[in-house]
Amino acid sequence: MDEGVLISAPGKVILHGEHAVVHGKVALAVGLNLRTFIKVLHTRDNAVLLNLPSIGSKLTWNVGQLQPLLPSFKGGHEPVSPRSEQLDLLRKFAGFSEGSQDTESQAVLAFLYLYLSICGQDIGGLNIVVWSQLPPGAGLGSSAAYSVCLAAALLSISGRISCPAQGCTEDVRWTETELKLINSWAFQGEKVIHGNPSGVDNAVATLGGALQFQAGQITPMKRVPMLQILLTNTRVPRSTKILVAGVKDKLLKYPSIIEPVLSSIHAISQECQRILEASSAALSIDQFKVLEELIDINQHHLNVIGVGHPSLDKLCQVTASHGLHSKLTGAGGGGCAITLLRPDVDHSVVEAVKQQLVDCGYQCWETSIGAPGVTLHSSLSLPEDIINAFSNV
Amino acid sequence: MDEGVLISAPGKVILHGEHAVVHGKVALAVGLNLRTFIKVLHTRDNAVLLNLPSIGSKLTWNVGQLQPLLPSFKGGHEPVSPRSEQLDLLRKFAGFSEGSQDTESQAVLAFLYLYLSICGQDIGGLNIVVWSQLPPGAGLGSSAAYSVCLAAALLSISGRISCPAQGCTEDVRWTETELKLINSWAFQGEKVIHGNPSGVDNAVATLGGALQFQAGQITPMKRVPMLQILLTNTRVPRSTKILVAGVKDKLLKYPSIIEPVLSSIHAISQECQRILEASSAALSIDQFKVLEELIDINQHHLNVIGVGHPSLDKLCQVTASHGLHSKLTGAGGGGCAITLLRPDVDHSVVEAVKQQLVDCGYQCWETSIGAPGVTLHSSLSLPEDIINAFSNV
Repeated sequence: MDEGVLISAPGKVILHGEHAVVHGKVALAVGLNLRTFIKVLHTRDNAVLLNLPSIGSKLTWNVGQLQPLLPSFKGGHEPVSPRSEQLDLLRKFAGFSEGSQDTESQAVLAFLYLYLSICGQDIGGLNIVVWSQLPPGAGLGSSAAYSVCLAAALLSISGRISCPAQGCTEDVRWTETELKLINSWAFQGEKVIHGNPSGVDNAVATLGGALQFQAGQITPMKRVPMLQILLTNTRVPRSTKILVAGVKDKLLKYPSIIEPVLSSIHAISQECQRILEASSAALSIDQFKVLEELIDINQHHLNVIGVGHPSLDKLCQVTASHGLHSKLTGAGGGGCAITLLRPDVDHSVVEAVKQQLVDCGYQCWETSIGAPGVTLHSSLSLPEDIINAFSNV
Repeated sequence: MDEGVLISAPGKVILHGEHAVVHGKVALAVGLNLRTFIKVLHTRDNAVLLNLPSIGSKLTWNVGQLQPLLPSFKGGHEPVSPRSEQLDLLRKFAGFSEGSQDTESQAVLAFLYLYLSICGQDIGGLNIVVWSQLPPGAGLGSSAAYSVCLAAALLSISGRISCPAQGCTEDVRWTETELKLINSWAFQGEKVIHGNPSGVDNAVATLGGALQFQAGQITPMKRVPMLQILLTNTRVPRSTKILVAGVKDKLLKYPSIIEPVLSSIHAISQECQRILEASSAALSIDQFKVLEELIDINQHHLNVIGVGHPSLDKLCQVTASHGLHSKLTGAGGGGCAITLLRPDVDHSVVEAVKQQLVDCGYQCWETSIGAPGVTLHSSLSLPEDIINAFSNV
């Protein structure tokens, strides 16, 4: 890791308030401990290598090729929104067609934008590897984790934020000001990828823990406990746009029936926040039971507003048959769900549930929420499977 | 049927608003076309025979035995509430112990109370058979249908309400004033049986159709269409008292989460009423689809307030797998559910669903709601199975 950095950022899940947030209610977003890792090493050969093994992409440019682009990218301390001319220029440079929306072209454009904007005249040879535990396109904030990793790594190697001395064996987090800068640049990366992102995903990937958001306002919650969960991807594809439109239609069709349901979801988010913030340490079993009750109620509400799916019903049945409580997270209509794992749940139960969910054709991860935000790793502290993943690319 | 009467009254189901009504919201109760029938014939031998084949009871008294009770029962036009001395007297007369709460003793006490109160000095020999399609104790208003049948029959034979000429081949319903008298006496019968009834069940059994009730006020709805349903009894026993208390506890624990759910249920009742009252004739398929949507939403809400049950989840799954929509009716926690049958549903589908529900161990009836209230039958118009039932007792 000589003269380089190894950084990770978490994914995100919506704990409560998806869809209701579109209608002005509170939602809670939490850091998901499925992380994206970036390793950046300086090289002496003036080559910029971007290796994205998770999506099977490996691209190389020469610094000399990139130099002519620099006049369009004033490297500076202040993050600025990408302009369409800049993106057109980058698209042309990388050889992507105008409407290209695939993961690779979005990842490459975001990298080039951040690299040129942050490093400016200081661009030099780099060997970059990004590896992610997050499935892309599953509503788990994989693009934000990627943008945050890129921003933090590029700000670190260009000396804009601190970088600890070599040989440090402890993971490091940055100061509030540095995190603000990372988040702000990551937000620009998200704009390259999504056009008009809410800013929630990059805030969670940067800050970790839990955030409250309402009417465009993002407020970090007080220190919250980490909670063990199963994260399950039903792999049923869905269109967030169509689901959001469906909720709006239902609200217009039955305002007096649906508006109270959104109010109830709002109150669920607030009650959940109250419980999480009240528990500086571990939650009591009674508090876990309240969290489970809130999950069950919200899952019913999400069905009422029309964003359920038979695959999610099946998932809830499977976990309920083992005494566990689940709700969809994000857009619904398939997609992902979270299942709370109380500390008193036996590991054999968790294994049985995971097996049953896999047998349904779902992907299933045993992980945690309330995960720490962007982190600079000492190589020693990195989990072995991730070291292996990096050494294999 | 010479010199006698044959009368029937419907059961009731709650279409929407169960539990919410306890907290001041609107509920809709509808006549259920599972009916209780009463046949009363004058006899010349001064014997009063009460035959209740549905519960396996057959009792006989002599008019001479009953005479000494009369001073305690001023027969009159005005229905009066049963006094505890009267009920003690009747209990002693019939040989029931003080706390007896079984179906037979309640049915006999209600009969004796209404017979002595309505007929007064005019008591004479009667042969009475009451036969019911309603399971007792299932929350379907079987005691109210019984009380309404008794009141209507005793008022008819004692000449307090009109009784058509012999040989009439059409079913007859009474005038509004007569129905009011029947309902009022039936309410006294309900008091004998239940102590403190709401009056909703006897109102539905008397008036049929659909009633709105809220905060103790009962308001008949405009003419509503009959709707075909499956009525299913999960046969899971439950305590209404405990379920009602559970909802109250949940409301106290999470007021800001649960109060909006009750408001949403209130709005569901109102929307349902609007649709039913707007349709003087048959509903359109679009209107049926709205009714189905309301059923689904309310079933989720009833789960949220804690009155669901795995047996009801199973029932909803079975019917949903055939494209049909169900909700619990009444107290929940097991008990009964209704499944709406759209007119475009193929009979083979209905048969398949019924078979699957029976295979779950449930009882299932294909019947209708919005059924007519208390009716005086000409013997010719009575369905054959009911004529057979009567001729076999």
